[in-house]
Amino acid sequence: MKKIGVAILGLGVVGGGVYKVLTAHREFYMQTQGVDFTVESVVEPRIERIEALGVPKEKVASNVAEAVLNPDVQAVVECIGGVELARRYVLAALKAGKTVVTSNKELITKYSYELERAAKAHNAGLYYEASCVGGVPIIRTLLDGVQSDEITSLMGVISGTANYILTCMEGGNSFEEALAKATKSGITEPDPAADIEGTDAACKLALLSSLAFHTKVSPQKIFRESLGGVTKEDIEDGCRFGYRLKYLAIGRRAHAGLELHVHPAFIKKDHPLANVAGDLNAVYLTGEPVGEVMLLGKGAGEMPTAGAVVSDLIFAATHGEHRYSPYKNTASPDRETAFAEDFASAYFLRVNAADEAGMLSKISAILGRCGIAIESIFKTAKEDGTAKLTLITRPSHERAMKAALAKFAAAGHITVESLIRVAD
Amino acid sequence: MKKIGVAILGLGVVGGGVYKVLTAHREFYMQTQGVDFTVESVVEPRIERIEALGVPKEKVASNVAEAVLNPDVQAVVECIGGVELARRYVLAALKAGKTVVTSNKELITKYSYELERAAKAHNAGLYYEASCVGGVPIIRTLLDGVQSDEITSLMGVISGTANYILTCMEGGNSFEEALAKATKSGITEPDPAADIEGTDAACKLALLSSLAFHTKVSPQKIFRESLGGVTKEDIEDGCRFGYRLKYLAIGRRAHAGLELHVHPAFIKKDHPLANVAGDLNAVYLTGEPVGEVMLLGKGAGEMPTAGAVVSDLIFAATHGEHRYSPYKNTASPDRETAFAEDFASAYFLRVNAADEAGMLSKISAILGRCGIAIESIFKTAKEDGTAKLTLITRPSHERAMKAALAKFAAAGHITVESLIRVAD
Repeated sequence: MKKIGVAILGLGVVGGGVYKVLTAHREFYMQTQGVDFTVESVVEPRIERIEALGVPKEKVASNVAEAVLNPDVQAVVECIGGVELARRYVLAALKAGKTVVTSNKELITKYSYELERAAKAHNAGLYYEASCVGGVPIIRTLLDGVQSDEITSLMGVISGTANYILTCMEGGNSFEEALAKATKSGITEPDPAADIEGTDAACKLALLSSLAFHTKVSPQKIFRESLGGVTKEDIEDGCRFGYRLKYLAIGRRAHAGLELHVHPAFIKKDHPLANVAGDLNAVYLTGEPVGEVMLLGKGAGEMPTAGAVVSDLIFAATHGEHRYSPYKNTASPDRETAFAEDFASAYFLRVNAADEAGMLSKISAILGRCGIAIESIFKTAKEDGTAKLTLITRPSHERAMKAALAKFAAAGHITVESLIRVAD
Repeated sequence: MKKIGVAILGLGVVGGGVYKVLTAHREFYMQTQGVDFTVESVVEPRIERIEALGVPKEKVASNVAEAVLNPDVQAVVECIGGVELARRYVLAALKAGKTVVTSNKELITKYSYELERAAKAHNAGLYYEASCVGGVPIIRTLLDGVQSDEITSLMGVISGTANYILTCMEGGNSFEEALAKATKSGITEPDPAADIEGTDAACKLALLSSLAFHTKVSPQKIFRESLGGVTKEDIEDGCRFGYRLKYLAIGRRAHAGLELHVHPAFIKKDHPLANVAGDLNAVYLTGEPVGEVMLLGKGAGEMPTAGAVVSDLIFAATHGEHRYSPYKNTASPDRETAFAEDFASAYFLRVNAADEAGMLSKISAILGRCGIAIESIFKTAKEDGTAKLTLITRPSHERAMKAALAKFAAAGHITVESLIRVAD
């Protein structure tokens, strides 16, 4: 029986979960994996957490160095959070030749090059499934499940908070009510802005795109648009065209380079991503030769995330060698990759205009002059003499749509009330 | 650069696909995986296949032994199909210490013990992702993605044909029309009965359950019910209760043992499996600590299946050691596992009865005497003096439902027109 001593740095939600899982399922892992995991050391300043989890006193290290350098420890779980301290501790563990498993998305997004280099240099393992879409084994799948695939696009519902908000809004809540519910239920990040503005999703998209497209992407390269502007009316209008509204993270290999964007997007109701509801997450891959693959699960939470950490521990313990990210681009981030900023999408557009003869032709002429064709259109006359027009365009470049918006503004009597991308 | 010479036994749909993928993506695998795959040997009696694929003459072996024992070959892809010959060839390759990747479901279901033993004894690798739900990396996920999970249930839409038929029936086709469409489109197994009667799905469920529940299951232990009996009326009736009809494969760890069944089943419309349409496949896992995870993709087809074979080849080439199925039960199949035959489900029931006072009470009394409670009920009066009753029961044991059916038959004037399980 292989014995693996584990040190857990930080007994917060995830670290505490890892302690519970390793303790509760110890027998199970011995039986099914042939590995005996014991928690040999924990680092946690809050005595109440140590007591609540029932960690034996003699397993509590007085500092990180003591835990990491403990000769009974072969694997270090980093759940401290933050970036700079975590980086220092992870580097220390890797330099001591220990396997490191981390749930720290910011750390991996920012320092994965440096950490992988250190891991390779010291023949140590570095694993981070839990750092991205917690309970969904998407990193393992990208590394070891669909490696035969030249992935052409990756689409994700990877903000549980945003998805929860949209699900509430479909149920009749306003954006503000839905956000309040999400905050109250505790599923938001400490600062909900990271969810609503897409910075958290962009971080995850950077990490997943790096693996899917075999390059290194920094979150700064990712176009973001807030979920904040969407309304119940948008959701209802899109529904008439057969769409559901999702907050999507999209990475796509296009002719001009990688297109990476996070924004609200309509998606056909029968697309597998359209039915990912509540706080579930999902990642949908398209490639050659595999075609389409989707993984769905809980994106966060104590137990799903702790489970991902432990799956990494088992992988490291049961596979002899360490394996790193298969980046073709092994220099510094972004250096060798072309990023396309002017990507193309179909658009949903809601326009209010004076309901008079020639209005439709005026609107379609403006779009036409910008090279934008209309796919389908609804018109509703209002009592105040104006009309509401909702329309779906054919795929058009961002630049073309910006030009059209400027022309609408200049034309007068035409107000663009809503503009939302449509994913294909 | 690691060099791996590959032999492909059989250039049928899958074997031919593997040849195409390895040839077309060779550069890509060199760049992203650091492995140079070359097809060193093929065995295929049909010259026209060899010519169509453009295999160089000098790579065509005159027999299997020549291909397998070729010193330039490190990995053997078995796509011959059938069982006994394939078994002999795979054993020969394993005994020569070669990695074997197979897409042969029947072979693995029937002989995995013997093959794994031979693989271990000769330090050879044995991989079979492609044998089960082709383009969905579910075997890798069970082995190396959610290993921390004590899986409590596994539900799958794993018959592409059955799912395609049900999707057509939702679109208005009768069962017969839908089956004819499926046969015409070429997605059925050579004998569509294997799809309709669930023998093919049972084979897959046996394999997946073996991995998910860390035991060894033979398909004979699996309860099966044909898709053949379902009607458009069933689908419409279930819809009123908020259900969609799927052909489900279910494995569940219950108190009395493993419950394994394949049958038509209603499932709530908002369940992720309910929206798996057309020829897509999906497997939905529930466990502790990970919670719920679903994988979705193409279950069959040349390219998805060939992609799965090549992902296995890459896994074997990039991971130093070989890893086998983590069966706790390492003796012969089924010996140490308890199987529960009397499993519990909720039921959908359509009953036709004389529309007279006391009829409802009579029906509910019969169910009640068998310990079956009613969850919800619709009644529709008909012009011929009878009434149609559709109802959903609370979870009830198979045995109880059989007893109730006997009582209905004995009571007279009550015809059970349809009885379909409801998955939770």
